[in-house]
Amino acid sequence: MLKGFMGENTDPSKNSKLGLSMDASILPARHGGLTLLQAQEVLYPCIDDPYLLGRISCATVLSSMYAIGVPEIDNMLMKLSVSNQLSEKERDVVVPQMIKGFRDCAAEAGTSITGGETVVNPWCMIGGVATAVCSDSEYIIPDKCNAGDVLVLTKPLGTQIAVNVHNWLQNPASWSKMKLVLTQQEATKAYKRALDSMSKLNLGAAKLMHKYKAHAATSIGGFGLLGHAMTLARCQKNEVSFVIHNLPVIAKMAAVAKAKGNMFQLAQGMACETSGGLLICLPREQAAAFCKDIETSEGNQAWIIGIVEKGDRSARIIDKPRIIEVPAKDREGELW
Amino acid sequence: MLKGFMGENTDPSKNSKLGLSMDASILPARHGGLTLLQAQEVLYPCIDDPYLLGRISCATVLSSMYAIGVPEIDNMLMKLSVSNQLSEKERDVVVPQMIKGFRDCAAEAGTSITGGETVVNPWCMIGGVATAVCSDSEYIIPDKCNAGDVLVLTKPLGTQIAVNVHNWLQNPASWSKMKLVLTQQEATKAYKRALDSMSKLNLGAAKLMHKYKAHAATSIGGFGLLGHAMTLARCQKNEVSFVIHNLPVIAKMAAVAKAKGNMFQLAQGMACETSGGLLICLPREQAAAFCKDIETSEGNQAWIIGIVEKGDRSARIIDKPRIIEVPAKDREGELW
Repeated sequence: MLKGFMGENTDPSKNSKLGLSMDASILPARHGGLTLLQAQEVLYPCIDDPYLLGRISCATVLSSMYAIGVPEIDNMLMKLSVSNQLSEKERDVVVPQMIKGFRDCAAEAGTSITGGETVVNPWCMIGGVATAVCSDSEYIIPDKCNAGDVLVLTKPLGTQIAVNVHNWLQNPASWSKMKLVLTQQEATKAYKRALDSMSKLNLGAAKLMHKYKAHAATSIGGFGLLGHAMTLARCQKNEVSFVIHNLPVIAKMAAVAKAKGNMFQLAQGMACETSGGLLICLPREQAAAFCKDIETSEGNQAWIIGIVEKGDRSARIIDKPRIIEVPAKDREGELW
Repeated sequence: MLKGFMGENTDPSKNSKLGLSMDASILPARHGGLTLLQAQEVLYPCIDDPYLLGRISCATVLSSMYAIGVPEIDNMLMKLSVSNQLSEKERDVVVPQMIKGFRDCAAEAGTSITGGETVVNPWCMIGGVATAVCSDSEYIIPDKCNAGDVLVLTKPLGTQIAVNVHNWLQNPASWSKMKLVLTQQEATKAYKRALDSMSKLNLGAAKLMHKYKAHAATSIGGFGLLGHAMTLARCQKNEVSFVIHNLPVIAKMAAVAKAKGNMFQLAQGMACETSGGLLICLPREQAAAFCKDIETSEGNQAWIIGIVEKGDRSARIIDKPRIIEVPAKDREGELW
């Protein structure tokens, strides 16, 4: 965003294990041959439910650790920017809800928050830092893709489109245009599906990355599927490129994107996601088993969306990708 | 500030080594009997020099680690909130300067920044997270004060008063009242002394805490000397209290505080400091040697400011504390 000042490893001389910083910082600790892994993220309010915002923020921070195959987090720090435009009464309702959501999500991940800081600021923000101290077998440096590998995505796309559609529902002028594309019920279902997806941890996927010998992964967020795929491709040791054929999208959100012309650039892989899935590179023979296993153990689908071929460390989406409509099921397999 | 939501250990069940979170989070890592220590801080712009702001911000983050006697930092993450009210041109000058200041300070501390994040926001902020993975001998849990111990402070008070005075210099109406108290040259000297003090690392003090067997310490910041002293007293194992007799203050700043009535509450120990010194509790027989050593090795003075006596884990400043005027020397011992 700001010419990448912060988006890259700012001191390669420090013997980081990953020259170009991906989701997390990975570097040797001073003791016991251990490695220190850390990720930090912050979210602006993207939804109007402070509890879920807290959960989603925590899931986003953790996702960056899960992308490097680290399921066990030693510690989390929370950071909170409380808007000075809230009344004291609003603050006393909203802030504890955000914190509770963040903490509940951390507890679900088997970790907890032992520190934090609060600042006051015009804009609300919530985020944090996750830290793990790991032995070498406990994390996966995301640079081992081979030609012939397969790309798997663990959550559907379209989260931010669903949030937008939900906002348009409140605005008659915006909604009148959308009515031709989807019903109010479909819009609400898609929004709930998005909330459920954004709140869900990628923890199961992180564990299965080890079982199925994943070669690399990244978490999908604000730069869209293709943006993150390109970053992952760029840091590969082998001369490979990613080709994406399939886009699993929350039901009806592809139609919305199409009706909005170029606004979201969903088919181009540029649609912004919040707390998206992991994009995981697996050996070809493992991918189907991985997808089956995550469905059984986690109750959520994963999709094979592309392949790794010889190339120049880039990523692309084919001209007319197949859109996979992902219905609005919740975690227990029931329709909302 | 916000009812302490974040200022305390948010999950005591996690077997944190310090029930009440002081400067840093201290908790067992999963491996090798090691301990994970982390601190995070963020600053709003308190001065108009972006490079020094970056330095001071980094020094502040590190100070929280130095307060627990940790001189070796494994990793730092930077976080930056860039004001959306800066023009692109302003941003391209100011932001790299802030980052450079932060990085230079980290380098001086023998560590570096391997990750970060940037957000856009109406208000500018810069801060970060410091992390160390330590064996038990490498840190000092700040809960071991005994009656009879002595309290030492490693930087003078009055940093924020000096910043205010500097701002008043630009404003004829404000300055006209101050002219009776100090000269323009004295105001400028005090400001430079404050900049120097705020930019200076408490690293030397952290090392000497081990050499002189410190029992506890905390870093002085926004809650003032007494605020931080009270927090430190509260987490003591023994039934002790702190009594502070002496206040070392940047030259002329006590006179400014007095002229301003109750505005700063300097003599009450409530004056807000930025990147202040460490308040260190030392065995009585070690304190003088500590002060001599830090002056020799670091070129800066430290002061014995109070004692530890039997009590109810509180802290107070005596009724008429002795003000020690600290002249505006720079690190090399020369007057500015």
